[in-house]
Amino acid sequence: MTVDQAGEPKRRSRQKRVGDALRRDTRDRLLEAAAEEFAAHGYAGTTVTRLAAAAGVSVPTLYLAWGSKRELLRGYMEKALSGTASSPEDAASRFAGMPPRERLAELADLVAEVAERAATGWRLYRDAAAVDPGIAADWNELQLLRHRLFARVLDGIPEAALADGLTREAAIDTAWTIASPDTYDLLVRRLGYERDDFRDWMRRTLTAAILAPAAGADTTRA
Amino acid sequence: MTVDQAGEPKRRSRQKRVGDALRRDTRDRLLEAAAEEFAAHGYAGTTVTRLAAAAGVSVPTLYLAWGSKRELLRGYMEKALSGTASSPEDAASRFAGMPPRERLAELADLVAEVAERAATGWRLYRDAAAVDPGIAADWNELQLLRHRLFARVLDGIPEAALADGLTREAAIDTAWTIASPDTYDLLVRRLGYERDDFRDWMRRTLTAAILAPAAGADTTRA
Repeated sequence: MTVDQAGEPKRRSRQKRVGDALRRDTRDRLLEAAAEEFAAHGYAGTTVTRLAAAAGVSVPTLYLAWGSKRELLRGYMEKALSGTASSPEDAASRFAGMPPRERLAELADLVAEVAERAATGWRLYRDAAAVDPGIAADWNELQLLRHRLFARVLDGIPEAALADGLTREAAIDTAWTIASPDTYDLLVRRLGYERDDFRDWMRRTLTAAILAPAAGADTTRA
Repeated sequence: MTVDQAGEPKRRSRQKRVGDALRRDTRDRLLEAAAEEFAAHGYAGTTVTRLAAAAGVSVPTLYLAWGSKRELLRGYMEKALSGTASSPEDAASRFAGMPPRERLAELADLVAEVAERAATGWRLYRDAAAVDPGIAADWNELQLLRHRLFARVLDGIPEAALADGLTREAAIDTAWTIASPDTYDLLVRRLGYERDDFRDWMRRTLTAAILAPAAGADTTRA
């Protein structure tokens, strides 16, 4: 008889599914706790004991689910950055087929959305990077991921539409710099810009810095 | 006879001059020590004992001359920001009578000069502001001083030369944001731009974001 032999993998597979679902749930609960605890107490002020207690799990469970406090910060940040998009590919798909000016306006909208959602996370990174080399390395990597997303969005703009003398590479660097989290910090936190003011500033500044003046005209739609 | 009555103020005045010169010398020596010690050990890692020893003075003398480690950081930063200019007025005077495009090119040059000189200081501020509210307040004030300098430089640009729909206030905010120390950090430290690349980027981006396209043409010289 092969009942046991056939039944065994099935049981294991069902156990695995249940295990995966439980692990995901634990990871999610820890992420939610991290969002609240980091925002309230800062990265340094949040201990794994506090995080585990806030999520209603033990400290060993936290380590099993996330590995470290640093990984939890990274997970929290990635969630804030991706928002409703399930991946960078998904985030890039909203730009499909758009002409240059609309593409930059859409990019400005995305930047404003993400900046608002991720402002606390970026501040946590900036502050923790000052005292923790591991966090500084993660921050650097997140900045480079951001650069790759900008490259993907700007690759859809024809060379002819770029400002006079601007290479595509320089255009990507420029958009990445203008739309950096620091800009949100300067305009919104320090100067008190409202959400819409910030989005309009981003649209206008990205367009002026990247596109040739004529590329903004209706001719680019043709 | 009034010799004593006349001689007494004279002696006091000479003693005061000597005292002032000695105090200035002590303050300068402490500033030089601060520049080296802060750069090598960071703000938190530099103690007043270390600073006093590096300047060859006692700790009480340091407190008498500067008041605190925070004041020394502030003095160090102000010196880096002003460079060879003796005051913000002096720094602003180099823009006298310049037409819009040249004015922004000159501003870009000044920003590149100062950014290079002050990069370490800004990083010290950013890192120390994360853990010290007093430093955070000083940093905020330095950012607002920077905003006032930009306002002064941009006040020399006629409304008609500004990009379509850009108010003077928004133009000042925009230049201040684009030329922030964070931009130097992103382009030079992270992307490896050379000094000249950075200056050219600053010229091109400030001009594109602030001036109407026509304002860049030779007609503005007329």
